[in-house]
Amino acid sequence: MTTAPAHLGLRSAELVDDVVDVSLFDGWQIRLHTLALRDLCPCPECRHPVSGQRLFESARVLPRTRASAVAVSGEGALLLEWEDGHRSFFSPASLLEASAARPAGPTQIRWDSGRGSSLCRHVWDRVSTEESALSEWLRETAVFGFALLRAAPQVAGAVADVAEIFGAVRETNYGRVFDVRVSVDATNLADTALPLSPHTDNPYRRPTPTLQLLHCLSSEAEGGETVLVDGFAAVERLGRDRPDLLALLARTPIRYAYRDGQAQLAADFPIVTLDREGMPTALHLNNRSKGVPAGAPEQVREWYDAYFALLAVVDDPAQQVVFRLEPGDLVLFDNERVLHGRTGFSGAGARHLQGCYADRDGLLSTLAVLER
Amino acid sequence: MTTAPAHLGLRSAELVDDVVDVSLFDGWQIRLHTLALRDLCPCPECRHPVSGQRLFESARVLPRTRASAVAVSGEGALLLEWEDGHRSFFSPASLLEASAARPAGPTQIRWDSGRGSSLCRHVWDRVSTEESALSEWLRETAVFGFALLRAAPQVAGAVADVAEIFGAVRETNYGRVFDVRVSVDATNLADTALPLSPHTDNPYRRPTPTLQLLHCLSSEAEGGETVLVDGFAAVERLGRDRPDLLALLARTPIRYAYRDGQAQLAADFPIVTLDREGMPTALHLNNRSKGVPAGAPEQVREWYDAYFALLAVVDDPAQQVVFRLEPGDLVLFDNERVLHGRTGFSGAGARHLQGCYADRDGLLSTLAVLER
Repeated sequence: MTTAPAHLGLRSAELVDDVVDVSLFDGWQIRLHTLALRDLCPCPECRHPVSGQRLFESARVLPRTRASAVAVSGEGALLLEWEDGHRSFFSPASLLEASAARPAGPTQIRWDSGRGSSLCRHVWDRVSTEESALSEWLRETAVFGFALLRAAPQVAGAVADVAEIFGAVRETNYGRVFDVRVSVDATNLADTALPLSPHTDNPYRRPTPTLQLLHCLSSEAEGGETVLVDGFAAVERLGRDRPDLLALLARTPIRYAYRDGQAQLAADFPIVTLDREGMPTALHLNNRSKGVPAGAPEQVREWYDAYFALLAVVDDPAQQVVFRLEPGDLVLFDNERVLHGRTGFSGAGARHLQGCYADRDGLLSTLAVLER
Repeated sequence: MTTAPAHLGLRSAELVDDVVDVSLFDGWQIRLHTLALRDLCPCPECRHPVSGQRLFESARVLPRTRASAVAVSGEGALLLEWEDGHRSFFSPASLLEASAARPAGPTQIRWDSGRGSSLCRHVWDRVSTEESALSEWLRETAVFGFALLRAAPQVAGAVADVAEIFGAVRETNYGRVFDVRVSVDATNLADTALPLSPHTDNPYRRPTPTLQLLHCLSSEAEGGETVLVDGFAAVERLGRDRPDLLALLARTPIRYAYRDGQAQLAADFPIVTLDREGMPTALHLNNRSKGVPAGAPEQVREWYDAYFALLAVVDDPAQQVVFRLEPGDLVLFDNERVLHGRTGFSGAGARHLQGCYADRDGLLSTLAVLER
């Protein structure tokens, strides 16, 4: 149904038991309940012509009327007449739209290490001035879960300006912009030169930020390369090998927690959130802030088996894209899909990134408007 | 287990098949798997002493060691010795914390129209200067899903300043602050004096803003009272009467959509999101922006039956708290739990509210820090 050409005209329409059967000229059939059709009536009395917002209360209108007749109008539209005197016209295109469940955003493409050889480096000067360049950068992010940007202004706070080109910054207790400064003489492990395993940020926060931007301001140390993993590809690989372990991860909520002098955050998420069809919709994977599974002690070992099996996929170089962020480089990624980490580094010299969080809604909205 | 007093000492500890059995002096028993205990080791090598963040990779440590001995220390703590030479100490309190699944936030209390007679009106001057007053206002919001505030500054934009006392504003395509201006001579239905049925905002946005603030700047028109409904109480009432209809709503995603010149948003949510225990965790209920259920036409009638049954509960005055916002009044509510609407109004005069969105994470974090 989703691929039916919208220019097809209507051949016939029939009303049987409150269901409208429509035949199109190319053999397509559409069946829609009259309740849905009245609720979707596109006339300017029923729908705001710009926003598409419904202008009547469904509960007051739908139970009090029924379709009394259907017909194909002279222009090839579907005409419904209602017992309360209302009339609804549906073009073939609007009927197809009503009958097909289209995805709410661009279709995702999974990737593995092979993607590292074909990374587009979008350039800030073009992205910030040309709609087509902005659209390409955003579409790549929506489809692959991340995209790179080159030559962003090398000034503190620029990462937020970049985010604002497509949406709003999600400010948190870490501020509007946060610093990731790593120096080799640090005493705190989190600030040392040790590698960080691929993870998602802020799983202890609900709602979790859905996008993250990391902007490199200086990169004098050797090593410290950025590692990205398509977490959904990793989940699907685990699901092929060990569906039982994936199901266990998906049904076991884990307490994530963080506290400092100004904040105290806690949230329960399974490592993997699956939709009704078993497709991954979110990952919350962070070894530093995770709690342990609740339930009988005997089930705990099984959960760790599943957790370590997923980590083994994530840590497999075949799943990882590895690159070095140079000053001015910025990476934008989906924080509930793409895991990020860094390799260890050594030698003298500072490494300074600035980051900020944002959300998918603004990105997808800006992309949809640009692509109209 | 959750009510066990944390001052109880340990009587004995036994290691059987990688499970530690602990007896406390008052007869309490705790059983924990050694994998979880090693993962939870609270020593300063394993955990950051302030943030509690784990300082080792579970996948590198846990599979390579086992507990070799357990004992009760002289101070009444649990001592574990590990084959790799590490030692872990757990106080009775930390053992109880590890074994009990505590809720991630304050326990909610459901309400109906009766709550209208006992509304606290928190006052801005105190909330903005006294920690105890701020804490009370935030706790009431967390427990009941909404709380009122009186005498907030009657200046444009003040609603964002109020939000920032506990967290960050969630900016959207409607801006940092949005206006709800209703005048009786408007031509657009959304701006007329007609009633608005109780709803949640922005169900077409993922992540949906979890908090909303509405601040009254002027209220000269007669009527236009604010209606609030505890959506979770309504869901639970439907679940008692018609569990089949609630289950249908919870398993049927609905496309929500919005578009204007600058934005184009779409998201799929069921009207009711339930957790594994069947308890409501989120409502996405907005007649203006909702699509129709996908699936066979014959199932569509059943879905509308369920939808209208929930609306009948929501529209029942027995579920509703109704009050008038006067200039300076502000209501803060959980946008995924509490439905908001307004009664119709008439007569001349303007009504001007300003609103902004925020999120639960900041509120619950600020509350937790205040209550430490």
